[in-house]
Parts: sequence; C-alpha cells; structure tokens
Amino acid sequence: MPKQRLLIKGGRVVNDDQSVEADVYVEEGVVQEVGPNLNPKPPSGLTVLDATNKLVIPGGIDTHTHLQFPFMGTTSKDDFYTGTKAAVAGGTTMIIDFAVPQKGCSLIEAFNKWKGWADPKVCCDYALHVAVTWWSDKVHTTGIFQFHEVVPQRPGISPPNTKKLLAMGITGPEGHALSHNEDVEAEATHRAIAIANTVNCPLYVVHVMSKSSARMITNARNEGKVVYGEPIAAGLGIDGTNYWNEDWAHAAAHVMSPPLSPDPSTPDFLMNLLANDDLSVVGTDNCTFDTCQKALGKDDFTKIPNGLNGLEDRMSVVWEKGVYSGKMDENRFVAVTSTNAAKIFNLYPKKGRIAVGSDADIVIWDPEATRTISAKTHHQANNFNVFEGMVCHGVPVATISRGKVVYHDGVFNVTAGQGKYVSRPPFPPYVYERVKHSFLSFLRKKKFKINADCIFSAYLPCRHSRRMFLRP
Amino acid sequence: MPKQRLLIKGGRVVNDDQSVEADVYVEEGVVQEVGPNLNPKPPSGLTVLDATNKLVIPGGIDTHTHLQFPFMGTTSKDDFYTGTKAAVAGGTTMIIDFAVPQKGCSLIEAFNKWKGWADPKVCCDYALHVAVTWWSDKVHTTGIFQFHEVVPQRPGISPPNTKKLLAMGITGPEGHALSHNEDVEAEATHRAIAIANTVNCPLYVVHVMSKSSARMITNARNEGKVVYGEPIAAGLGIDGTNYWNEDWAHAAAHVMSPPLSPDPSTPDFLMNLLANDDLSVVGTDNCTFDTCQKALGKDDFTKIPNGLNGLEDRMSVVWEKGVYSGKMDENRFVAVTSTNAAKIFNLYPKKGRIAVGSDADIVIWDPEATRTISAKTHHQANNFNVFEGMVCHGVPVATISRGKVVYHDGVFNVTAGQGKYVSRPPFPPYVYERVKHSFLSFLRKKKFKINADCIFSAYLPCRHSRRMFLRP
Amino acid sequence: MPKQRLLIKGGRVVNDDQSVEADVYVEEGVVQEVGPNLNPKPPSGLTVLDATNKLVIPGGIDTHTHLQFPFMGTTSKDDFYTGTKAAVAGGTTMIIDFAVPQKGCSLIEAFNKWKGWADPKVCCDYALHVAVTWWSDKVHTTGIFQFHEVVPQRPGISPPNTKKLLAMGITGPEGHALSHNEDVEAEATHRAIAIANTVNCPLYVVHVMSKSSARMITNARNEGKVVYGEPIAAGLGIDGTNYWNEDWAHAAAHVMSPPLSPDPSTPDFLMNLLANDDLSVVGTDNCTFDTCQKALGKDDFTKIPNGLNGLEDRMSVVWEKGVYSGKMDENRFVAVTSTNAAKIFNLYPKKGRIAVGSDADIVIWDPEATRTISAKTHHQANNFNVFEGMVCHGVPVATISRGKVVYHDGVFNVTAGQGKYVSRPPFPPYVYERVKHSFLSFLRKKKFKINADCIFSAYLPCRHSRRMFLRP
Amino acid sequence: MPKQRLLIKGGRVVNDDQSVEADVYVEEGVVQEVGPNLNPKPPSGLTVLDATNKLVIPGGIDTHTHLQFPFMGTTSKDDFYTGTKAAVAGGTTMIIDFAVPQKGCSLIEAFNKWKGWADPKVCCDYALHVAVTWWSDKVHTTGIFQFHEVVPQRPGISPPNTKKLLAMGITGPEGHALSHNEDVEAEATHRAIAIANTVNCPLYVVHVMSKSSARMITNARNEGKVVYGEPIAAGLGIDGTNYWNEDWAHAAAHVMSPPLSPDPSTPDFLMNLLANDDLSVVGTDNCTFDTCQKALGKDDFTKIPNGLNGLEDRMSVVWEKGVYSGKMDENRFVAVTSTNAAKIFNLYPKKGRIAVGSDADIVIWDPEATRTISAKTHHQANNFNVFEGMVCHGVPVATISRGKVVYHDGVFNVTAGQGKYVSRPPFPPYVYERVKHSFLSFLRKKKFKINADCIFSAYLPCRHSRRMFLRP
Repeated sequence: MPKQRLLIKGGRVVNDDQSVEADVYVEEGVVQEVGPNLNPKPPSGLTVLDATNKLVIPGGIDTHTHLQFPFMGTTSKDDFYTGTKAAVAGGTTMIIDFAVPQKGCSLIEAFNKWKGWADPKVCCDYALHVAVTWWSDKVHTTGIFQFHEVVPQRPGISPPNTKKLLAMGITGPEGHALSHNEDVEAEATHRAIAIANTVNCPLYVVHVMSKSSARMITNARNEGKVVYGEPIAAGLGIDGTNYWNEDWAHAAAHVMSPPLSPDPSTPDFLMNLLANDDLSVVGTDNCTFDTCQKALGKDDFTKIPNGLNGLEDRMSVVWEKGVYSGKMDENRFVAVTSTNAAKIFNLYPKKGRIAVGSDADIVIWDPEATRTISAKTHHQANNFNVFEGMVCHGVPVATISRGKVVYHDGVFNVTAGQGKYVSRPPFPPYVYERVKHSFLSFLRKKKFKINADCIFSAYLPCRHSRRMFLRP
Repeated sequence: MPKQRLLIKGGRVVNDDQSVEADVYVEEGVVQEVGPNLNPKPPSGLTVLDATNKLVIPGGIDTHTHLQFPFMGTTSKDDFYTGTKAAVAGGTTMIIDFAVPQKGCSLIEAFNKWKGWADPKVCCDYALHVAVTWWSDKVHTTGIFQFHEVVPQRPGISPPNTKKLLAMGITGPEGHALSHNEDVEAEATHRAIAIANTVNCPLYVVHVMSKSSARMITNARNEGKVVYGEPIAAGLGIDGTNYWNEDWAHAAAHVMSPPLSPDPSTPDFLMNLLANDDLSVVGTDNCTFDTCQKALGKDDFTKIPNGLNGLEDRMSVVWEKGVYSGKMDENRFVAVTSTNAAKIFNLYPKKGRIAVGSDADIVIWDPEATRTISAKTHHQANNFNVFEGMVCHGVPVATISRGKVVYHDGVFNVTAGQGKYVSRPPFPPYVYERVKHSFLSFLRKKKFKINADCIFSAYLPCRHSRRMFLRP
Repeated sequence: MPKQRLLIKGGRVVNDDQSVEADVYVEEGVVQEVGPNLNPKPPSGLTVLDATNKLVIPGGIDTHTHLQFPFMGTTSKDDFYTGTKAAVAGGTTMIIDFAVPQKGCSLIEAFNKWKGWADPKVCCDYALHVAVTWWSDKVHTTGIFQFHEVVPQRPGISPPNTKKLLAMGITGPEGHALSHNEDVEAEATHRAIAIANTVNCPLYVVHVMSKSSARMITNARNEGKVVYGEPIAAGLGIDGTNYWNEDWAHAAAHVMSPPLSPDPSTPDFLMNLLANDDLSVVGTDNCTFDTCQKALGKDDFTKIPNGLNGLEDRMSVVWEKGVYSGKMDENRFVAVTSTNAAKIFNLYPKKGRIAVGSDADIVIWDPEATRTISAKTHHQANNFNVFEGMVCHGVPVATISRGKVVYHDGVFNVTAGQGKYVSRPPFPPYVYERVKHSFLSFLRKKKFKINADCIFSAYLPCRHSRRMFLRP
Repeated sequence: MPKQRLLIKGGRVVNDDQSVEADVYVEEGVVQEVGPNLNPKPPSGLTVLDATNKLVIPGGIDTHTHLQFPFMGTTSKDDFYTGTKAAVAGGTTMIIDFAVPQKGCSLIEAFNKWKGWADPKVCCDYALHVAVTWWSDKVHTTGIFQFHEVVPQRPGISPPNTKKLLAMGITGPEGHALSHNEDVEAEATHRAIAIANTVNCPLYVVHVMSKSSARMITNARNEGKVVYGEPIAAGLGIDGTNYWNEDWAHAAAHVMSPPLSPDPSTPDFLMNLLANDDLSVVGTDNCTFDTCQKALGKDDFTKIPNGLNGLEDRMSVVWEKGVYSGKMDENRFVAVTSTNAAKIFNLYPKKGRIAVGSDADIVIWDPEATRTISAKTHHQANNFNVFEGMVCHGVPVATISRGKVVYHDGVFNVTAGQGKYVSRPPFPPYVYERVKHSFLSFLRKKKFKINADCIFSAYLPCRHSRRMFLRP
C-alpha cells in the first residue's frame, strides 16, 4: 500500500517563534521536511496543496469543550461527530473534552464512558480532562493527579441572591448576569490561586471571563506563581450586554457560567493580556443548546442550560479581534490558539508546531479573505451562533489532520472515528520544571531535611480542591 | 453633693479636623465649654489641670481586645481590671471587647456572661462585639445583626501545611509563620469582601496584618465598596522576623493569628495606608499570655496560645511610628486612635471628640516627652512586652475618664467597676447612609419594584459568614 | 445701627463629620450659636429662615475658576459679577480664581490686576491663586511660594500629533480629544508628583480628568506622598464622547484641556475615588465661551477657546452623581464641596464648617427637590450648558453669604462688590504638618547635620516647575 | 582547505521552546543537523565535543555594553579584546555595544569610529546601537531610525538634590543613591512610554533597576503597548545597600545610573517579572572602571565614573538567581539571555537558536558544576567584581563562536578580530508587526483617509526624544 504523501507549497510557515517562507512535506501523517522549494520524489501519488500568499499554521487546539454533555436535564447539542467536524472547518485539529463523573462514579469509569462516546465519532484528535466532582477512596486511588484546572465558580455565594432576584420577579436571563457578578468570579480565582500556591501546585484557570479575574491571574504571575489563564472565544468576541436583549431566546443563548461580562471593554482588556502572555491559551467551553433546550428555563433563569458555541469559530474570532485589530502578530496567534496549549498539556512538539517530526495537523490560512459568521452557514448542530453577523478577516482554506486533508474550500473529507485519542504524559516540563526547582530552592533556604518523599508529596497536586482533573 | 468640675488650661485641643489653643471645662463628666481663657465660677471645688505646651486629645478607643478570654486551654492574663487600668495609663479611655459564645450558647447568653465579667472590674468605659461562632435558630433570633467584622483566617487551608511542617520537624514558633502565609490572609479578606458586597453589607476587617490583605481593602474602597480595615499596634510597630528569634519564649510571645508579617517593610506600608485613610482604625487584638502559658506549645507550635499585648502602648506606638516619623499629623492621629472608631461604632460625637456635650474622656499628651516601653515598667499583667525597648516620643501625662482624672504623672486614681457599659445604636449613619443610598440607587437603575421589605433585607447584614458580631 | 441678625430654624446641620438637628444663629456675618430650639432675643430685627426638612450646609467653595479671563484671543464670558451671582444661585459662596501673569509681568502685578477686576464685582467672597508662567528674578522675589498646583498638560508631546491630525483633515473638536490622550495627562501628573516629591513639596493637582491620572494620585497617596487631586464638575457629570457629537457647536462647547475622557465609565471611577478620599476636592475650571467665541476654531480645533461651565451647577452635579447615586453620604458631600478646600487652602474653620465663630456662608439645601439644568434657565452669561437636560435631585433653596441672604427661592439679593477678598496664610497645617515631620524624620534617619536653613529650603516649594501659584 | 567540522555529542539541546536529547553537527560555522545519534562522515577532520549530562544552549547575547568607552574624563577599562574574551569565558558569544556621538558628530561618524575600534579586537560577534545625543540636520539625515532604546535618566531633576547633598556634606557614594531615587527612574520610564505611545513607536527600556520602573513597563504591556524592559545582571544579582558600605572603594565600585536599588527585595521582584515575560532581556551595561579611575570622585560622588561589570558573569548570575532559585526553567533562561535579544534586534534565528541554518554560537553548560565569582579569577580587565564571592551553580564548559571552540575547560583559543560585525535589518517583525497592524486598525476605526505616507511616518520612530539609537 502506498504511503500517504502531501506537499504544501509556496506558503509562509508560521510557528509561535517565527515565520518563514517554506514548503512542508508530509508522509504518513508526520512532517518530514520544512524548507524552500521542496521537490519530493516520486511526483506520483503526491497530493500538492498550493499555499501561495497564504499562511501555513499548526492546527488549532481547543482546550475546553463539552460535546454531547449530559447537563441540567438535557444533553449538549453537538456530539463528538458534529463538534469535531465543525472544528476542522474552523481550523481546529484537536480538542480536549471534559469527562465529568457523577457522584459515586470513579474517575476511570468516567474516563472510559467519555472515551467510549468519542472514539467512534471524532473527526480529529482529542484528549480528555477528568473532573474531580466528589471525593472518596474510590476517586483517590483511580487517578494520578497533576495540576488542577479550576472552574472558578462558587455557588455558595450565589443562591441567596438568586432567590432574592426570583422573588423580585427577575426571572429572565439578565437574572443570571445579576446573580453571578464579577466579584464572585474574582473571589473564586483568587481563592484557587491561594490554595494551589499553599501546596506548591501549578494552576490552570479555565474560562477567564472578567477583568477582575484576569487581574488576579496577572498579579499571581507577576509574583512568580505558576498560574495559567484561559479566556474563551466568546469572552474575547462578545460581551454580556446580550443578557439584556429584548429577545428572550437571544439572551438565553448567551447564558453560561461564569457569565460574559456586561462591561463592553472587557474583551479588549482580555485580548491585551492574552497578547502579553498574562493569559496563555484560548479555549471555548463549547457546550451548545438550541432554543428548545434553553426554554427549559423560560420561567426561571436558574434552569436555563448553561453553554454556548465557539468550537468552529474560535480561530477566526481570535484572528479578527487579536491580529486584525493590531493587538498581536501571527506568531502570537499561533501561540495562543495552539502552541501554548500543546506545551501546557504536554503534547508539544508533536502538536502545536510545524517542524520535522511533528504530527501533520496543519491549517492553510488566508489572512486576506473574510467570512461572515452565521448559524445559517455554520457546521455546528446548534440553531444559534453567538457571533452571528461578525465579519472575520482570516479564513481557513484547508485543514489537514494527521496528514489527511479533511476540509478544503468548504468541502469536507471526514470519517467518523478517524481522530485518535492522544495520551498525555503527566508532569509537563513546561509547567513542572519551575515547580520542582522552586520547591528544591525552598527546601534549601529553610534548611529542612530533604528526602524524596516530602518532595514528591509537595509538588504533587493538591488533593483538597472541589474540582481537579485527571490525566488518564 | 457638689458637682464634679474640671478645667484643663492652656493646652492645644486636637480634634480630627483641627487643632486650637483652648481651655476645656467639664462638669459631671461632660464637656461644657471649649474656648480660650475660660474662667468658670466659682473657683472653689474646681480641679485645674495645666496643659501648657501639651496636647489635649480625645481619649483613645481600642476597638479590639480580649480580656480574661478563655482560649486554647487557658485564660488570657489581663482581666478587665488590669487591662483597663493599663489602658488609661496609656491614654485609652474605652475598649471594645469580644464576647465569644461557645457552641450551643446563644448570643445574648454570651453577651451577659461577658458583661457580668466586665462590669465589676472595668476602670474605663467599654462596649462589646458578640461573635457568631455557630449557627442555629437560637443564634438567629437573639441578635440584631449589623455589619460584620471579619476575622480573616481560613483554617481550612492551613492544616495540611501544619501537619507537613510538624512532620518535617518544624515544631517551633517559626512554624506558625510558615503555616499562615500572607496569601492565606489576603484570600480570606478578599472572600469576605466579595461575600459582603454580594449582599450589600458593609464590612469591617479586624487585624489587617499584611500588605496583600491591606491592598485588597484599598482596592475595594477605591471601587466604592463600604469596607474598613483595622491594623493593630503590633502590626504597626514590629514585624514577624521575631518568629525566628533564637529564644523560644521571645518567638512564642509573638504568636498570634494572622501572624505578624516577616516582611520588615510591612509596618511602614500599613502606616502609609492608615495615614491616607485606606485603613481606618487602630486596634490591638490585645490577648496576653505569659511565658508559662505560651509553653503549652513548647513541642508543637499549634498549641501555643495565640495573642500578644498592645492595649497600654497602642497610643504611643502610633504616635512614634505615625506622627514622629512624619507619616501623619496630630489630627490624623486622633482620627485613627479615637474618632474613626467612634464614628464606625456609632459612639460619635459622645466619644471621639472634644466638644461641648461630649463625654469628658480626655488625655493630656506631651508630644515632646519620651518613654521606653518595657515589661518591667508596664501596667499590664503579662511578663513580656512585644515592644520591649522601643523609645516612644509622645507620652500621656494625664488621662480623664468621664471627667475624673484617673491617671496623672504616673499615679492612678481608679476604682474597679467605675467604667460604664456603653450601648451602641444599630446602623451607624457614618457606615449605613451610603449603603442605603447605594441600594436605593441600584433599585432605581434596575427598575425593580421597590418595597420596604426588600430594602430592609438587602441592607441587613449577611447571615451566612462564619463569624459575625452582634450589637446587643 | 442695628446688628444684622439671622436665625435658621428647624434644619439638619450637616458638617463633614456629622449631621445634627439644630438651629443656627448668626450675627454680623458670623455664626454665634448652633443648637436645638434657639430663641435669640429680641425677636424684633431678626430674620428667620425656615429649614424644616432641609439640610443646612456650609456654602460651597469652588477652588478653580477663570472669570473674565483673557485667553486665546478672547475673554471668558462670565465676569466676576455674573460668575459669582450664578455661584450663589448654585450654593457656592466662595471661589478661588487664577491670576495668570503674562510674560514679563511679576506675580504681584498679576495679583493686583486680578484683584482690581474682582473687587468691584464679586457677589461672594473670593481668593486668588497666582500662576508662575515664566521665570526670572522678578518672579522669584515677588512671591512666597507654597505648594504648587499643577496644570497637568505637556504641550511638548501634543504638537506633533496635532499637526498630523490637521494634515489628515481632522480639524474638528474630535481632533482635540485625539491629540490629548489620557496617557499624556497621566504622564504629566506622574512627572509633577516625582518632581514635587524629590524636593519634599506637597502637590495639588488641578482638573484630574482621567482614570490614569487619578490612579497616579491614588498610588502616590498610598505611598505616603502629600498629593491632592481635584476633579471638576464636568469630569464627574459628563464624558468626552461629546467631542464626536455631530453638531460642531455642541462638540466645541466641551473643548477644554485636559479634555473630558471619551471613556464613559470615567465619571463613576472618579466619583468613587472622591468618595474614598483618594481625590479631595471638586472644582470646576469654569471658563465659559459662547458659540461665537468657540467659532474662532471652526476650521482648526487648536484655535477653539478652551473652557466650559460648572460654577453654578457644581453642587447639584456632585449631589446627583455622588449622593443620590449612593457613592457618598451628605457629610462627604460637604467635605468635597467645601470643607476640604477650606482645609487645604487654609481657610478652615472660618470657611468650610458651620460652627460657632465661622463665617456665616451657609446654604439651605433641599435634598428632595429636583431641577433640570438648562442654558435657558441658568444664571451664567454663557449660551450653552454642558449639563443641559440633567435632572438633579438636591437644590439650593437659600444661600447666605457672611450672614446676608443673597439668594432665596429663585430671587437674588446681591450687590456687585459685596464679596470680600479673603487672605490665606501660607503653609496650611493640614498640608504642611506632615511635610515638616516627614522632613525632620528624614534628617534624623540619615544623621545629617540639621540646621534651620536646610529645613526651610527643603520644605519650601519647588522653584523649578513650569507653573506654580503664589499666595499673596 | 578542509571544512571546519564540529560534532557536539550526547547533550541536551535547550532552545527557548523545548529541550531535546540530541547531537549537533556544525560545518563552516553553521549548524547542519540537530538530532539523535548523529554520525557525520568522514570521521577524520571532525572535532567532537562530549556534552553528556550537559546542556547545549545558544550562546548568550549581551544587549548592552560599553567597551573602551570614553566617559567622565577617562575610558572604561575593558576594551573590545578583554571584554569579548571575558564574554566567551562566561558563555556569551555576541555583544551589542553603544556608539555614542559627541556633540557635533554625526551618527555615521560615531558608528564608524566605534566599528574601527571594535573590528581589530573582538573575539566574538558584535553589533552597535548608535545613540542620538544631540539633534541637527546632520544627525537627522544620517540615520534610519527605528524604535528607540531609552536611557531612563532625567538629570533635570537630580541637580538640585545633588547640590543640596554636597552642601550637607554628603560627598560619598551614598550621595549618588540619595540623589537618584527610584521615583526619578520611574518618572523617566513612564514619560518615555507616554511619548513613544503617542507617536505609535515601540520602546526598549535599557537597565530597568527598580520596582517602580518595572511596574511602569508591566502596566504598559498589559495595556497592549509595545514596550520591552531590560534588567541587567547587576540589578538581578546584587542591590544598592552596597552604596553604604564603609569601604569607599567598594561603595564607589557600584556607582552607576540609574543606581542599584537600596531595597533588597528588588532583585527577586525583577527576576519574577523576567520569568513571566514582563521584562524581556538581560543585558549588563558593562562599563568597568578600576579603583584608581573611580577615585576621580573621591571628594564628590558626582565625579565618580559611572559603571560596573557584568559581561563575563551575566549568564551565571541569571542561572543562579533565576533557574537555581526556581523562578524559571532552562528554556526561559535561554529566552532571556539570548533568544529574545535575537528576536528584538532582528538577529533571529541566525542567533538565539540552535537549529539547522543557525550560526554555531553555542555553549555547553554544566548545570551541576559551581564556580565562585572573584576579581582574582575573572577575565575582565577590572580589579573589582561586584559579584565577588557569589557561588554560582551553572558553569560554561565550552563556548563555540561561529563553529570554533574559543573556550574550553578554562582554556582560551581566541584571536583578536575573529569576531564579525553583524548587520541588523531595520524593523524586526517581532517588534513591528503589531505596530503595523495596530496602526492600520486605528486608521480603519477612525475612518481617516489612508495613504502610504502617513502610515510610514506614523510608525517610524519618534524623532523627539533626547536619546535614540540608530541601526546602521
């Protein structure tokens, strides 16, 4: 059987550190050569893609999705097939979804359930976070814990307000925004940072939605703490004034937690921090529900299923608001949509970089083309798109997953289940080298007796937070 | 029976807003006149105090004491007699102590117990905070809650570290500092602010010990939140490097929670914020234990009774580190040692000001004299003084409580029980006017239906924090 | 000739530290008594004003006006008569105007010129700042310099941008905003703080217009520097989006320097800092030009005379945006509109307080009444009002200047020239006590040889800034 | 003539993005191959270096040196020979020196003079910044200006203090620290940021010495401004308490401008920001004077020649204080000592990376070895070393410049003049892509007419600062 061979010609290869005019040659799903004027032999059996005047970038990695997620009495609309198919149309070639055990279920059971759902359906590679939603020996003994990714929500604060708002007759989606103010998110973020730091544990904060929360992360990083912040596509592209939209369905479609900030200058603020590496990675928290599902909460905002889209449009939104707006260059774009995620989740340089030996997860990107986002034309299963009408400069022309052209000029070539589960080794050096050195340094300074055990337990992750995630 | 009459002549009367050269005339414990060259008739039966070249200031109010406090298996050394006697020697004429109910005990029961202890012993006026240490209907129905004063400690974070430190052989007082880092205090402070703000409740944060915690309060105030911060005399005068003192008894004598900051630039930092009204009031958290009591924790820092002195020396320490150092003027000194406390705890202008109609709680203060603080000469019951050896400019020459000269040139004239319990009306306007206006404004903006009930419940204090304090 | 006698009955006397239900009795322009149920004898010849359900507050002090100011080829519309007449209608009973010498003119000459203009016209008391606009021995020897009040503008940065904007065809008022961005104001503020601090000089920053500039002041205060910030009525009430108004005359009417911030959340931000004492005093920079005058710059925004109104409406704007919005209480309102100005400019307690011995500059304020601001009904000479249409709760019912009722229920009783020039002693203790202590403390720490001369020169004001102001 | 060939075997190749176990093969000064188990043929004529258990890192780039610099009446001790020889001993393979024209001298004349000095002496590659020290058409027309590198000093503030200090008898080195306080540096930094931003110009701030200045840079970056900060080795390794050393020669040896901060927590603070990419690059400002030269200022600190060492020890100091202390990992170490400098000054990836096609400027680094810094053993010409006695983990074992082993196990193999001048193309994309996009975005938003000229002039560098640097 002949080798699968691909040549991307004439493009500008953009990695996070530099851009070069170069061709890219791929065999069996792996990059073999990057350089000018490649001419692999034999010419027969070689697929050639012309990338003249285009960028050739590492495929996007969405660090935060919830496909076919059973939640709040229903299941999110996009499953692992429609979700990953839409992903490749948007230039994303890998997702990390969340396996969320129900109470009584062990981590490994949850992991197996989610993997069983994903394997037959995925159109691109994927990995899984596993949430720690309850605690017992059963949970304890089934996971090797590494740094935890915190969902900065503190429901303990909200209920009193929620009840009061409902009692005052505030039952619509604006009640969701009013009951989840920015202070609550910042408080949870700050608390997570304090706890993690106390036990010398790195921290990855998902869905950073507000200025206050982002400032907490920035301050912690400035003080030398190992903390990463993940804004999401929706938080960078739109704002929470939508909760006051007179159309209930429109407003409800934006309900998620933490909510989008009603302060319209928040998206720019977050993008500036993302450009400056105070925030690190863009995810989506993609968790779609259609209008009928959202209507579960038509009389009570607390019953509106939480979630919105982003998986397909993430790359375009970041280009438009980040690069086209002048806040970042094309290299930083690659860093925040792909490379940094690969480093933090220990996939680098197999993912997140176009270099000899890397997986051929590649996107040909046209920075001059434009498209208008719309639910009428998108490929996700949902009937609403929170970016409706946004004109985006920067369009994926072709998407390659492990060397196969899965999307080209609007045409798909995908098979359910062609994506692979990607195992992630624990303790990524990008995250843990500092932790190790810092702990050794602490021990030296304090003149404590050092033994292997206390080091091990100290830089192992915290076992006490409400939610942590397992590396299976 | 003749009236008790007193004339303070030739001094400079210093209130928080201005200083004037004036005499002060007192009858029956109340100021009758303030002005130049007073000459009350008849001259007989008139006590005259010469205050030439001295300051005449409102008596100090210590907002935070624990006299004869049953705690950690022992009882704090200074009782309501020795404590308040030492207080007047230092220029303090009123204290607010904490009634702390044991589990199962109602708020009113605790209040009565503490009042029973204090009434026969106090040498100056006093009031009580009542702590909310547990929750049930019994607690709920025995208090009118107003703004809560938070003890920013979060033991939930500390234990794992504590155990680890003990396991590593760190059993001395430095372990106390290591297990209670600054982040923990800042986290608790920020959380309290977030919770209070969520329910539109003012907040008074006791014993602000670290830069991080103080910054949280400053930021909240800058954003318009009704938050007050109380540093203590020890936090302004000394630092946490003492925990590493080679003398165990010395180090243990400084153990309190939150601990003194090991960063030696913290006291100046806090004093700058106090000068600038980002912090409001100086307390002491006076809770003395002698070396024998501290020795309960000689093999385990977690068993060292927490607490240190301050009640007698607070005024001198603030003058030395605040005024003599050039960070504040004499008027601001009066504000932070007396007037602000009176305003926040609804005692103003009866307390905290020298004006016609005010209680004659007055101190004649010599800004040029110096004294050296020492356990050998102080009047508290403890055998250790954390300010040992500090030379203080600014010395109280005479202290007047309700018109009676209780201390003069080193001589006491006190009777146990002569002080009075001072009732404090709920909802001090200094604190609550803004809360009320702000809530009304919120309601108007949101176009909610307004009724008296929802206003009332909204600006009532939060009922959900672990510790709150009752106004009996 | 009979004494002028006045009784204000039944009101609530509001000072910066407290409010009390009390009558106020005035003789010969000075407050004689404040207390309940006053009944001065004889009843004949006594003017009685009923203040039932009203507030009785110290008259406002506008720290920053430019009446009949020769500027940019024209003269500001309001002269000392129309300006001060409008002032009393708005509840302001004292102004501090700027005497601005032309090059070659000494400080004392400028002072005399301005005093000559004001004396025959003023309807209320006034004082003068004198600007240092150039430097020579002639300037040096005619002033006793005290702390300088900085105009944070740095024209050196703007011109390049200005020329570029004009060259690009941007000739309208929006060009003014574009050429004076927030960074420029913050830079000038920070530089002034650094220079002042280097020479141990207190600093008063006029017209703080932007978040960035206000943050610089807040930070400096937190670090213990003696810095005061003055926002203005326009900066608290409206924003710089007006520069993009399609009506040229409307946009041009808002041109001043530094410009109003185009960020619509700036007024709230400044008001929060004002409430929290990070900003100290509200002025106006009142400098009115009518549409014909503004038209001097119809083809070139750099030629639009800079200035806008505020003198009449300042008190109402601060009440509406500060008190009615819930950001401050009535006592803080008095502090920022009157008391703090009196303290900083050494007029206290003659001005800025209602107390025995104070000047009877008093306003009866109805917190429940409303009025709508409009150029059609205001009393200033200008044909435009930047607050047009603003509905203000809080209305001055009667204004008393030195015991004379000059305005009551819409009726004036003023005579040109009835106001008095108020001399201000140098080195107000409110400002300089800390400076003196701080310098002495510095000398002690550094163990320098101390002599009177070096102290004197060190806490004398800086002689090197471009603009300083003289106390005549 | 046979090719120069080199194989580095068995090491761990560390770039800024990742570390891999790999050999490195070099021909004619350029890296040919990076991979495991390389076995280049023929074996004869191949130099092989064993790097087992060692790191193989890109040679260091010192962005800021002053070799044989005529300054303050003398010439700095290290010339281009001794300086660059010491550099390679320390693991640095490229320097960027400053050509500083005297008044009247054109930029190109200065450039030629410095190049004439350097070419015959350098032992490693070098480039030049050219300072703009005065302004005329002669200066204007001889340079293509790109982003300016600011020397944040503002002598205009210092002189008054300087004179006062001298007059008070403070003539020693501590006077230098007292006359150049942190506020002055922060002010200059903030002003430079404001000016640069006003004209859309990127900014590179040399020698960031204080917390305040670093905060200004951090804040600017958080707001999206294109600003880079360069701390120096001395600022990261030692502090300004040395100015109070009782040994005059010791204290004087530390005199530089801006001075080292007397706050001992500053080095850690700066290192945290460097780890977090708020500061970008480590230079040295190496400008050595021996004790005799320093003695020019023995009676007057203003005459002490300013400057200290760092060129040889920079890499070790950053490893010790950055990596060994746990603040950064080995990849970030490479970024801040080499890669970022290469990117910012448009040398990347020829310099700053070990990859196929890069210059073979390589260091074999032993992270386990230690050395003690001392003037007795260092290779610089000076008789004093500010890091005297510092024990550094992390030692350069071998240094390779353009493929030649110039230093190995303490033995030099250098020839004066073997280094090359490296031309740097203007407008590095790493810096200017964002500037260009941002300006285009600004133009689009404001709906201005766009033409090539105005774009060009707008993102050209500012022509108005006192000091700028030319790319020849």
